[in-house]
Amino acid sequence: MRVSFIKMHGLGNDFVVLDARNQPIPEISGKIAAGIADRREGIGCDQLIVLGQSESAAFRMRIFNSDGGEVEACGNASRAVALLHGEPAEVETAGGMISLELASGGASVDMGAPRFDWDDIPLAYAVDTSAMPVAWDGLENPMAVNVGNPHAVFFVDDADAIDLATLGPVIENDPLFPQRINVNVASSIADNHLKLSVWERGAGLTRACGTGACATAVAAIRKGIAKSPVTVTLPGGDLTISWEQGGTIRMTGPATEAFRGSFEWDDFA
Amino acid sequence: MRVSFIKMHGLGNDFVVLDARNQPIPEISGKIAAGIADRREGIGCDQLIVLGQSESAAFRMRIFNSDGGEVEACGNASRAVALLHGEPAEVETAGGMISLELASGGASVDMGAPRFDWDDIPLAYAVDTSAMPVAWDGLENPMAVNVGNPHAVFFVDDADAIDLATLGPVIENDPLFPQRINVNVASSIADNHLKLSVWERGAGLTRACGTGACATAVAAIRKGIAKSPVTVTLPGGDLTISWEQGGTIRMTGPATEAFRGSFEWDDFA
Repeated sequence: MRVSFIKMHGLGNDFVVLDARNQPIPEISGKIAAGIADRREGIGCDQLIVLGQSESAAFRMRIFNSDGGEVEACGNASRAVALLHGEPAEVETAGGMISLELASGGASVDMGAPRFDWDDIPLAYAVDTSAMPVAWDGLENPMAVNVGNPHAVFFVDDADAIDLATLGPVIENDPLFPQRINVNVASSIADNHLKLSVWERGAGLTRACGTGACATAVAAIRKGIAKSPVTVTLPGGDLTISWEQGGTIRMTGPATEAFRGSFEWDDFA
Repeated sequence: MRVSFIKMHGLGNDFVVLDARNQPIPEISGKIAAGIADRREGIGCDQLIVLGQSESAAFRMRIFNSDGGEVEACGNASRAVALLHGEPAEVETAGGMISLELASGGASVDMGAPRFDWDDIPLAYAVDTSAMPVAWDGLENPMAVNVGNPHAVFFVDDADAIDLATLGPVIENDPLFPQRINVNVASSIADNHLKLSVWERGAGLTRACGTGACATAVAAIRKGIAKSPVTVTLPGGDLTISWEQGGTIRMTGPATEAFRGSFEWDDFA
């Protein structure tokens, strides 16, 4: 059977989107997700997104990594889907309901409320999460924030001067973090404008970590280093993060359609 | 303007094909070729192929690398184009006329006649090209063959035991080879069946070098190690090479269509 798709990207993170609302899509196996994601023999993408009917929301979004595993959330993919949908929507995901809006040059997504309690991060034992009493070779007293996944946020004079490729895996695997941790190193480069490098748990240095940008902006606002909305410059581009104490985080950034096409399902299945 | 394309691959080498015979295609700049070839923000490919009208052949094929530079020939792309064309054809290329045929599971292309004279390889000075009096750490007395580009072919008991990543660049840049050289290390694994690793001049270790398979099969036939047709197993898959003394080389192997689609020209230009 011939299946239509849309290829999109946001901040260097790319997606194949299948819309099961206007065509029949068979069950997604690990093999078909990996086949579609293959950059030479398939279509090529970081994540496969499947849109379907929902009884409780405008539609349902499922997200599969290129190894075939289904994941709960992807901020970059959510913006791409918002652009495709073309109007504000509540969307059902495996990680809960998310709220999408359109924005100039892209879209925005509600990322939920951050959590700061030590056992919500989670940490191995109770410490002050606003400035944890720990240090690694020039990086010290990070703030811990959970925005759906756990983050440690360090503020330094020059984020580019930190060897995060070396320190990232050491901090990620410290016994303080029983579920490991994403490591964010940020510098203020202008009023309400941060430059950020992220060591992603399980993935290493990446071009754009949406949850890292959210955790870092929230930490900066809590510390009084910046005021909402905060622009976060990542290697892949800029995200704008809005958050007020007690509220949910809104992440705004670019998303783009690259091309559209169709393939024979059985070729990749 | 919206432009249609076909995505294809052969032995791990992948192509975006634009057919200018059934739609207007603007001039190909380095920027558009690189934009289309980009694997995250474009369509993604090793080479961009443009088919057009020819006054002297069935059609004309132009080949652009992902850096935008136009090249004369690509055996893997020629097979993909033959599969697309669906019948035997003489095709005009920047490297001259080529003859395409269909074959089971793919297609075949006439690669021209091999050359063996020392100044046709070219070498820096006259030696016996059938067993050059040179050696590098276990690799010795290669045959030199030019099949459109220059090759040195070594036969060893176990090609997998050779550290080609280390020796390849040393041999490639030896003063004996004024235009550098492609380095082929082959073992016979059955009657008329060779296993081949190739260090490609300017590209390093690759999954499938069509001209390396041609040069190696020709060298094996000349040495009496194998008889035509010769199966050559590369990391990316198998090619079958036919050649008789005094004739031209025919290379047969797989080619596959992955998907079809369309994009906005101005998005990548």
